[in-house]
Amino acid sequence: MKQSQLFCKTRREGPKDEVARNAELLIRAGYIHKEMAGVYSFLPLGLRVIEKIKQIVREEMNAIGGEELHLATLQDPEVWAKTDRWNDSVVDVWFKTKLKNDSELGLAPTHEEPLTSMMLNHIHSYKDLPVYVYQFQTKFRNELRSRSGILRGREFLMKDLYSFTTSQEELDKFYEKAAGAYEKIFKRVGIGDVTYRTLASGGMFSKWSDEFQTITKTGEDTIYLDEKKGIAVNGDVYGPQTLDELGLKEKDLQKKKAIEVGNIFKLGTKYSQPLGLVYQDTDGTKKPVVMGSYGIGITRLMGAIVEVFADSKGLVWPKEIAPFQVHLILLEKGKSNADKLYKELTENGIEVLYDDRDLRAGEKFADSDLLGIPARIIVSEKSNEKAGFEVVDRRTGRMAFVTDLKKEIK
Amino acid sequence: MKQSQLFCKTRREGPKDEVARNAELLIRAGYIHKEMAGVYSFLPLGLRVIEKIKQIVREEMNAIGGEELHLATLQDPEVWAKTDRWNDSVVDVWFKTKLKNDSELGLAPTHEEPLTSMMLNHIHSYKDLPVYVYQFQTKFRNELRSRSGILRGREFLMKDLYSFTTSQEELDKFYEKAAGAYEKIFKRVGIGDVTYRTLASGGMFSKWSDEFQTITKTGEDTIYLDEKKGIAVNGDVYGPQTLDELGLKEKDLQKKKAIEVGNIFKLGTKYSQPLGLVYQDTDGTKKPVVMGSYGIGITRLMGAIVEVFADSKGLVWPKEIAPFQVHLILLEKGKSNADKLYKELTENGIEVLYDDRDLRAGEKFADSDLLGIPARIIVSEKSNEKAGFEVVDRRTGRMAFVTDLKKEIK
Repeated sequence: MKQSQLFCKTRREGPKDEVARNAELLIRAGYIHKEMAGVYSFLPLGLRVIEKIKQIVREEMNAIGGEELHLATLQDPEVWAKTDRWNDSVVDVWFKTKLKNDSELGLAPTHEEPLTSMMLNHIHSYKDLPVYVYQFQTKFRNELRSRSGILRGREFLMKDLYSFTTSQEELDKFYEKAAGAYEKIFKRVGIGDVTYRTLASGGMFSKWSDEFQTITKTGEDTIYLDEKKGIAVNGDVYGPQTLDELGLKEKDLQKKKAIEVGNIFKLGTKYSQPLGLVYQDTDGTKKPVVMGSYGIGITRLMGAIVEVFADSKGLVWPKEIAPFQVHLILLEKGKSNADKLYKELTENGIEVLYDDRDLRAGEKFADSDLLGIPARIIVSEKSNEKAGFEVVDRRTGRMAFVTDLKKEIK
Repeated sequence: MKQSQLFCKTRREGPKDEVARNAELLIRAGYIHKEMAGVYSFLPLGLRVIEKIKQIVREEMNAIGGEELHLATLQDPEVWAKTDRWNDSVVDVWFKTKLKNDSELGLAPTHEEPLTSMMLNHIHSYKDLPVYVYQFQTKFRNELRSRSGILRGREFLMKDLYSFTTSQEELDKFYEKAAGAYEKIFKRVGIGDVTYRTLASGGMFSKWSDEFQTITKTGEDTIYLDEKKGIAVNGDVYGPQTLDELGLKEKDLQKKKAIEVGNIFKLGTKYSQPLGLVYQDTDGTKKPVVMGSYGIGITRLMGAIVEVFADSKGLVWPKEIAPFQVHLILLEKGKSNADKLYKELTENGIEVLYDDRDLRAGEKFADSDLLGIPARIIVSEKSNEKAGFEVVDRRTGRMAFVTDLKKEIK
């Protein structure tokens, strides 16, 4: 894409009311726009990152048998009343609204109830199980405060997977499979090295749940990490008893700040029971379906990646989720070599943002640093003379003079 | 995909409260689920159709220079107050809700105001124009009644494109380009033959707007069609004066029922003026940006396609937007030939739904008719003996015995 045709502009400063580093940088770089506290719109570059993350998540969800669907936002109170979660003192983040006839509706903060209720039409027998379904859907949560940029929005994009199985054993097995898929996802989006499966409270559902926590200095959570074993314990459940149960020793643990990028729960029959989702087993008896839920905040994950990699100059994207792989910077007076290279790279399936604008080199480099595209290629009088190209790695700053570009970039 | 792994089930009857034929069939076929009047969830097959329609629309929007973004749902009243559209007596379809601090928010019924407001950060000079942006985003409209299935939902998916240009002339030019893109879209999704550009009221914005109306017996709108000239007039603006202005004659017109599948508007400076979106022209003077908006209801379009093609046996999808191109029906006792064919077709990039379930032929055929996949291939003892396959065209019912499948299907 030619940068002269991109409508969004970079800017020197973020909005004054923005305190989160992730949002401040993304706004300055023109990836997102702040509508109000906790509510952001996604501009073309930001949407490209979101779509790349979604595609990676989608592939891994499909690989473990997930079927994609898309549930509605508007919620019928009747369905939620059955689990008592319509009650604002039980779920305190509802946005509620009304139809013209004055009957109340809610905006889904999560989707266990409507999905479980829908499955009454599709699950009747052990032959219909297991079922694994997932979606990418906007969630609405009426948070009292919202100061963490896209890490904790009032409106945010989530991938939520739900499993429906016949037994606790089947759930346990799939739960580990899902945990494995999560590890693949965090590796593929570039934060595998700093993301740990972390024991956390199971809330109302079970004793434990598992979080995936990404180490960063700006994290909201505190975890205790056994780096050798590659596992961690959330500060919320940290204590002698937990360590004992897990066979961890205090002296092996490091206290770290981290961001929760995923959370998986064994729901058991918490929702199937009150909503009446039962199946007929092989022996003819009716049993409640055993459920699990598995979340990844997609916009939160994008924010976490910003927090992990950004430096003093701006954003730094891992290659797999960068909006473009190559930022081609035109500095020569004519455009013929840069135009030719843009065409060649694009034809070879490489995504290129081509800075063809009539600006000084310093401005182009500052913008390029801020945008954070992994490889920068500079076409200048100098590169033309030498019949090669300068390639700069955004993350390390390492510069190389390359004559065979295809080899370097692929 | 193997049908034994698809969780959604077909059923004989739709919900009793469902009066719209499109929703009734889609629910029976397991494409959608009704949450409440005007609110539907999309199951795997339904989501596949939606994604195919979106991709066609996306390609045509990109081809005319559109940049994709994604605006927020939650709306700040301040922005809408500037055009007086926060006022419920001006826009009577708002869903409104509240933050914890009791301040009001709305759910976007459309996006002119927040987008125009956002452009204050990106458009300053004639050099920044034109800008064409679009999104696929859920809209929320608090309709008094909602009885048309996915043709008119309270929550529905829309593609909305907005143009920002320097002058009325530039707008006029782009408007025709957008109309051309719409014609391509309706052709590609399979309803080109029965969809007509239709003169309609411009509402508050201008004298006229253009709708795209698809002829079907169940349409909510009435249009007057000059088939020879290929244009139509909406009943709302039909009258001697309109016909005069357009050079149409009453005797050439047929009265038809139709569904509006698209609508394009010349907004002019209706929004840029109150929201202060101005640009500096070549002569240094500041002028309001000239805007247009261009909508296609994606879920509505899907519903319209159902209404146009469905027959007494069920859904009938045009090939380009069908959830799968081929419905492979296993009737042989062993599975080896069907399994082999499934593998071959899939490897050749053909999307196949493979009915590998252990059911009687009659049930499989009834399901297949209801699902509406364009080509049905039957693998049976008979086909194995004859070293070929029966291929049935869902729309025409025509059956052919084919030995070279690849040739037939591609």
